Amino acid sequence: MNEQVVIGIDIGGQTTKCGVVDARGNVLAQTVIRSDTFTEVEPYIASVADALKKIIADADVDGSVRGIGVGAPNGNYYTGDIENAVNLTWGGSRSIHFAKMLSEAMDGMPVALTNDANAAAMGEMTYGAARGMKNFIMITLGTGVGSGIVINGEVVYGHDGFAGELGHTCAVRHNGRQCNCGKTGCLETYASAVGVARTAREWLELTDEPSSLRSLDNISSKDVYEAAKGGDNLAIKIFDFTGRILGESFADFIEFSAPEAIVLFGGLARAKEFLTGPIEKAMNANVLPLWRGKVKLVYSILKESDAAILGASALGWEL
Amino acid sequence: MNEQVVIGIDIGGQTTKCGVVDARGNVLAQTVIRSDTFTEVEPYIASVADALKKIIADADVDGSVRGIGVGAPNGNYYTGDIENAVNLTWGGSRSIHFAKMLSEAMDGMPVALTNDANAAAMGEMTYGAARGMKNFIMITLGTGVGSGIVINGEVVYGHDGFAGELGHTCAVRHNGRQCNCGKTGCLETYASAVGVARTAREWLELTDEPSSLRSLDNISSKDVYEAAKGGDNLAIKIFDFTGRILGESFADFIEFSAPEAIVLFGGLARAKEFLTGPIEKAMNANVLPLWRGKVKLVYSILKESDAAILGASALGWEL
Repeated sequence: MNEQVVIGIDIGGQTTKCGVVDARGNVLAQTVIRSDTFTEVEPYIASVADALKKIIADADVDGSVRGIGVGAPNGNYYTGDIENAVNLTWGGSRSIHFAKMLSEAMDGMPVALTNDANAAAMGEMTYGAARGMKNFIMITLGTGVGSGIVINGEVVYGHDGFAGELGHTCAVRHNGRQCNCGKTGCLETYASAVGVARTAREWLELTDEPSSLRSLDNISSKDVYEAAKGGDNLAIKIFDFTGRILGESFADFIEFSAPEAIVLFGGLARAKEFLTGPIEKAMNANVLPLWRGKVKLVYSILKESDAAILGASALGWEL
Repeated sequence: MNEQVVIGIDIGGQTTKCGVVDARGNVLAQTVIRSDTFTEVEPYIASVADALKKIIADADVDGSVRGIGVGAPNGNYYTGDIENAVNLTWGGSRSIHFAKMLSEAMDGMPVALTNDANAAAMGEMTYGAARGMKNFIMITLGTGVGSGIVINGEVVYGHDGFAGELGHTCAVRHNGRQCNCGKTGCLETYASAVGVARTAREWLELTDEPSSLRSLDNISSKDVYEAAKGGDNLAIKIFDFTGRILGESFADFIEFSAPEAIVLFGGLARAKEFLTGPIEKAMNANVLPLWRGKVKLVYSILKESDAAILGASALGWEL
């Protein structure tokens, strides 16, 4: 009972995952509650606090919890607030003092909060593929493209707490795809799961190339991946294109912070057999000679079901 | 005699500037020696050491020197080496253990070394426009485009000591201009003094637009600036274009590190009355809404003749 543990909370639009984690990254107990059945934050926090008390009891770690780490959309590390999180039913366009409120509901237990991608970077550095690295860039390839930048062993938060929005750097300057953020040509309009599906729909419409994807109604990135595994040429070319766009962007990121590695995580990263080659080719063709062939491209090694909890929990060790 | 001072050395291809600097950024004594009359590093270092002993005597600060800071092309902060500096007559394609050698020539006085743009960032943070800022990006607009990135009050050196090559991020993806680094479309092929002169020559050839620049033989960025001040329309449009390219790139830099400000320095920054408007317009049009109108664009306030010495000297305070 003396070994210290931390709690990780991953807040998503639909569900909230909570877990108790030890120093080696073992999830000792976990539970999932709904995020989307609340329209007010107070009852949601009460529900989170109940869940935490349950898993603390399940893992039998009462008195050994060092702190609580939270990964949340639009989470601000400096303030502990969740700001303008329009995808959370209890969020909306305002600042919620989440860390402070949760700490009060947990009898003063310290709470740190950041966004999901920064939490993923912390998790990878603490328990995963970036263990021992002091300079790396985490790229999460999910519905969107998120990023967590680590320099000198610390996540970069910037002047206002919101640094690391690499999914919204410009991948295509002119006539780029419309992004949800209001801009055009953002990296995530091409290199996310949604972006890959967009590429597929676009290319199926613009070309006559035969493809097993033509028989599908609502194409997802998973369909493109399955087709590529089945040897579908168009699907493989879609990943070539996606990898090239990613590699070109990574070259610019390397010129910024000279990382030891770029670490990929998320649903789309599962297609690594089709992405790695094109990414490395474009990255090395577009970076300064001094970094050519020197920056590693690695994939998360955290168990996908645990990764979100582990990432958030890693913040707890800093408290 | 008790107040501590530092020494700053700025190594350029032709000359080396050395100065004694106090904590308020006053240059108490300075001198300039040639860099390009040496083919071996040993006699060059002996010459630098003689110069330093002279200015230490001139300023009457013997015994009060805290350390020596050096700004040099391809200077590596981690190793103290100057690596592959082909523009230095005694440099060439090898590693020179410059900091160690100079320290030995100065009876063990501590020496820190970095590249010119990082030194400029340190100078601006210690004595200039970025005093009190913990997160900013320094962009030097000279013959090339250099950068020094400050995060959490520290210059970013990255995994290998060479971070912050923003002049070689991609400004124009396809059919971009050839850069000296071997790549195409690099920011510095458009937004440096050389880049502005290139734009002028290109536009004069491709259009019939009347311009006072047509009467000149060998157009420099200074000529374009003088023409713009004289109301020349083409010259003003060249700065509009240069500012747009810079602003588009700055938007991506902001998405990386969320700085409080971008600080401009260098010969081309003198054209601020023509650059500021176009830069701010493009920067705010291309950045995520959360940073729109919030990131300052500021210009160096250091006296140009002292800036290089001040920047290098700032490193000395960390020793």
